[in-house]
Amino acid sequence: MRVGILGAGWWAEQHAQALATLEGFAVTGVTSGSLESATAFAAQYGGSAYRTAGELLVAPDVDAVLITAPHEYHAPLALQAIASGKPLLLEKPVATNAEDTHAVLNAARAVGVPCLVGFTSHYFPGFSRAKQIIDSGELGRPLSGQSVFQKRWMEANRRDWHLNRERGGGMLLTAGIHALDRLMWLMDAPVQAVSAVIGTHLHDQQADDLASLFLRFAGGGAGMVGSYGYAQGGPINATTILCEAGSLRVTPDSLETGQEDRWTAVPLILPDNLTLAALAQEWLELRAWAESGQLPRVTPEFAGSVMDVVFAAEESARQEREIRLNP
Amino acid sequence: MRVGILGAGWWAEQHAQALATLEGFAVTGVTSGSLESATAFAAQYGGSAYRTAGELLVAPDVDAVLITAPHEYHAPLALQAIASGKPLLLEKPVATNAEDTHAVLNAARAVGVPCLVGFTSHYFPGFSRAKQIIDSGELGRPLSGQSVFQKRWMEANRRDWHLNRERGGGMLLTAGIHALDRLMWLMDAPVQAVSAVIGTHLHDQQADDLASLFLRFAGGGAGMVGSYGYAQGGPINATTILCEAGSLRVTPDSLETGQEDRWTAVPLILPDNLTLAALAQEWLELRAWAESGQLPRVTPEFAGSVMDVVFAAEESARQEREIRLNP
Repeated sequence: MRVGILGAGWWAEQHAQALATLEGFAVTGVTSGSLESATAFAAQYGGSAYRTAGELLVAPDVDAVLITAPHEYHAPLALQAIASGKPLLLEKPVATNAEDTHAVLNAARAVGVPCLVGFTSHYFPGFSRAKQIIDSGELGRPLSGQSVFQKRWMEANRRDWHLNRERGGGMLLTAGIHALDRLMWLMDAPVQAVSAVIGTHLHDQQADDLASLFLRFAGGGAGMVGSYGYAQGGPINATTILCEAGSLRVTPDSLETGQEDRWTAVPLILPDNLTLAALAQEWLELRAWAESGQLPRVTPEFAGSVMDVVFAAEESARQEREIRLNP
Repeated sequence: MRVGILGAGWWAEQHAQALATLEGFAVTGVTSGSLESATAFAAQYGGSAYRTAGELLVAPDVDAVLITAPHEYHAPLALQAIASGKPLLLEKPVATNAEDTHAVLNAARAVGVPCLVGFTSHYFPGFSRAKQIIDSGELGRPLSGQSVFQKRWMEANRRDWHLNRERGGGMLLTAGIHALDRLMWLMDAPVQAVSAVIGTHLHDQQADDLASLFLRFAGGGAGMVGSYGYAQGGPINATTILCEAGSLRVTPDSLETGQEDRWTAVPLILPDNLTLAALAQEWLELRAWAESGQLPRVTPEFAGSVMDVVFAAEESARQEREIRLNP
């Protein structure tokens, strides 16, 4: 699978390194905000630098597309890529609002193009093993969960657009969405309603740095999500789930099951580099989808449901009341 | 301080053992559901067994009263005790509904009787040290928090009334209330609104076993509380708080502060028996209040605010919408 990359930032570099670990994959094209940065990226990771996405998308040696551009460009680039008919790995968020999100997902369905949304939690050993255990039914139905992503917000890779919600910035769309995504995946039921408090408390920016979400699931379950981008603090990246017949405590690289009032570590096979291994699995699943129609762990419908909850949470925070999701 | 005990169950035994560790305190009277159990308790812990609360309350060798009866009797016994004018240590919950709660707290204020509500979290080393750090201002204002009490619901000390909400039963009023109490204490701001999902999923009973609460605090803060009484699982009893200039991770006997992306353990002086030491401190604070007017860590106003949130959460769960609290 020969991959053309739209957006040559630090996350594109992670993907390029992941692709380099795989047989049968290569970077064959790249565009970026400037031809200079695209050329520098191509020099390091291979392929040709293009001036525009349109030129890259028609290149005969590009079989699949990766979108790692700033969030505000996800939807327009995704629509362009889908129109080309080439399989797409679209980084989260799908778009910066609900309308664009569903325009992208509907277009992919209409054209019949595989579109894998990069919710990486599904590909980390802790969360993916937890999902297997839940799907096995041995712990019964999930009933309640908490999921927190607390981290330094102003990491080295932050750009101006990260500080502006209109451009798709903010902790929730950038990082907290992973805590929501994995909670919804593990709880395994539709979200019926969301309440949220979202604010900017710790940074001089327009976009959010702290968000707390409360979810009512179909079937009576409940979930709580913390998206906390601190200026000063200690990191937390963990999810706990209580099921009918036992509990789970999960991080990207650890998993414990709780039964008989005790926690027991579940052995995991941990790769040297969690991130590269997760991205490599995304590519293998996109290829399997393109070649044999096998759906990936992250279906477009599921990705759309996560985005719907994000936008409903923002509405809840604005209106200071619970927002019901359309069934 | 010579203590008369109303209700001779297992928690009264904890108090009696705590009182035995203190200079100047003694158990001098006890009543219970039956004279037999009161007599057995008195034989073990001292004092006289009484047939009725009324007889105990007028005994000249009873200076202070402890209420450890089943939850449904808290309010009527508290009103009787307050009328006697003797200082009162009232176990949580204050009452099983908002009306009775405020009747009790208003009566104590009107009569001028010290009434310490037994929210023990305030007296555990982890939470009390966390509160000192927050009060010192070194971490700035608390902005968001999560607090979970997940444990086996059907412990050996459960009685029939624990299974019935009308009688004050259920995980939330029995145990989960501690997770709520300490979150509100550490967040240090009034709760403006609450959303909750409360249900009975894991036990054949009328009262709740699982509850999830979402709190909007004055000043823009948010909090999430899990009250999870499992039939099968692993225990969690922890609270995390993110403040402007750092974070806290707390359990009854441990505390870490988060700064510079690292967690650092705060040394705590841990007694041999956390519970007895906590109860002993409650008694010392009740005596100081009675003798010198010094307010305890748990003021009646604060205890009332915790109860208000519990009852608003139950209303939210019934109506499936957010409930605003009266300012």
